[in-house]
Amino acid sequence: VLTSRALDEAVGATLFLKAENLQRSGAFKIRGATNAVAILGARGVRHVATYSSGNHGQALALAAAEAGMLCTVLMPTDAPEGKSAATRGYGAKIVTYDRYTQDRRALAEQLASDTGATIVPPFDDAAIVAGQGTAVLELLEDVGDLDVVVTPIGGGGLLAGSCLAAAGRVTRLVGVEPDARRAARDALAAGHQVEVPVVRTICDGQQTERVGEIPLAVLLQHRAEVVGVTDDEVVAAMRFLLHRGKVLVEPSGAAGLAAALTGRLGRVAGLRIGVVLSGGNVDVSRLTGLL
Amino acid sequence: VLTSRALDEAVGATLFLKAENLQRSGAFKIRGATNAVAILGARGVRHVATYSSGNHGQALALAAAEAGMLCTVLMPTDAPEGKSAATRGYGAKIVTYDRYTQDRRALAEQLASDTGATIVPPFDDAAIVAGQGTAVLELLEDVGDLDVVVTPIGGGGLLAGSCLAAAGRVTRLVGVEPDARRAARDALAAGHQVEVPVVRTICDGQQTERVGEIPLAVLLQHRAEVVGVTDDEVVAAMRFLLHRGKVLVEPSGAAGLAAALTGRLGRVAGLRIGVVLSGGNVDVSRLTGLL
Repeated sequence: VLTSRALDEAVGATLFLKAENLQRSGAFKIRGATNAVAILGARGVRHVATYSSGNHGQALALAAAEAGMLCTVLMPTDAPEGKSAATRGYGAKIVTYDRYTQDRRALAEQLASDTGATIVPPFDDAAIVAGQGTAVLELLEDVGDLDVVVTPIGGGGLLAGSCLAAAGRVTRLVGVEPDARRAARDALAAGHQVEVPVVRTICDGQQTERVGEIPLAVLLQHRAEVVGVTDDEVVAAMRFLLHRGKVLVEPSGAAGLAAALTGRLGRVAGLRIGVVLSGGNVDVSRLTGLL
Repeated sequence: VLTSRALDEAVGATLFLKAENLQRSGAFKIRGATNAVAILGARGVRHVATYSSGNHGQALALAAAEAGMLCTVLMPTDAPEGKSAATRGYGAKIVTYDRYTQDRRALAEQLASDTGATIVPPFDDAAIVAGQGTAVLELLEDVGDLDVVVTPIGGGGLLAGSCLAAAGRVTRLVGVEPDARRAARDALAAGHQVEVPVVRTICDGQQTERVGEIPLAVLLQHRAEVVGVTDDEVVAAMRFLLHRGKVLVEPSGAAGLAAALTGRLGRVAGLRIGVVLSGGNVDVSRLTGLL
């Protein structure tokens, strides 16, 4: 948990940053993956698979390796070399597909039925949601009850897990999505899943077309809120964290802080705010481009 | 204290990184400054001054502000705007001078006799040396005894303080200086201070022309070692820390890790190595240039 007086002054509140960028595999995703692998392992599963090319893929590869389990990750042929290298480095098998002509979920189901692997989806899964919630559980253990907890939202696993972990100990739970992607805000307003087209945003961890069914049910039950931030606001937050906090976060990892720094959280003067810096997996060359 | 399995694999040893880049004021210098200000304050001093335009200047400004003491910092007219803004932000008064025509130490002494301020030098001072040593003291408290402790060396305050803190608990103490600046290696070989011209290096925290007299006596007594690293090796270590560790260090802050990553520490296979990441104060624009 990082704190910064410069940040507190900028926001006019007391902020506690849960630094999941410093987490193993570089993101909170290792929490859900570890939980899912533990549960599946206890049921005798020896081979897991997923179709996420992002942080969840790397996290599942690592969690499976530590449990002595096989892991297969479907990745688009044009995935960044850094991501496939890291996933392979954790001992996973990579199967590539053409993202423009092939449906990754159908391919994953085919792979599962061919190999007997169990698919571990990136967010729409109770074990994943519960695992992700341990980030906020630890944050509350470290700093006590909070007025607001802010996390990025893509598929909703992290925010839903945070709602479960925070029940009764946090007044407001706020998700932050890219301004151009309204999947979470529209779903909360409608009360059901809303599918949106993939939008252009630097927040590659949050381009998912919809919030998962399981996470959404939790968000509605716990009256979670969602706000949007622009890419420019996210870059400014990344810069602030580098310059004043000396830590590197990926764009989605800075979304929560961007909301706090731009007033998108509404009236928070004097409050105690927890912000999950969800991950730090950004290539150095991409980083210099963004900055 | 940060750890990284990727780093341990790269070095073939177990590394413990003391992250002084996350320290208040962005560097270990706040330790010595706080100690000096506490000692001087107890003696009734109400105004301190220094001629360091680097991290020590910022640290002294902050330590003085917290103690309710006046602080004056001499800075060259062409100091980076970020550094003077930060120093001013901590409430210090800045007096500028022309670094090409004026002698900063003479100016500081004049200032002291005019205003009654007490000069707190950046490294050649027992209170400063003792304060800097608390970084390694805390490291040993956290992780236990170590085989090797590595820190950057400029004027020698940090390495000398580390020797005092580590006595009997660490086998080897190693300082790392820019390859082009032999002030520390030559002084240890000669057994007395050696003055060298200011060299070109990206390690701006280690351009000092000599190791201080007080630190050098401690280094000789404790048989500390010093090795050199090139600027390219330092940039590679900064990159490694950003990419794998998700933390930002300034060039001098990465010097210790650069020595570990390039084999400059000699045979360290299987050993437990503490590395002080001494600071993180590097402008984002300079960072992108270096990367």
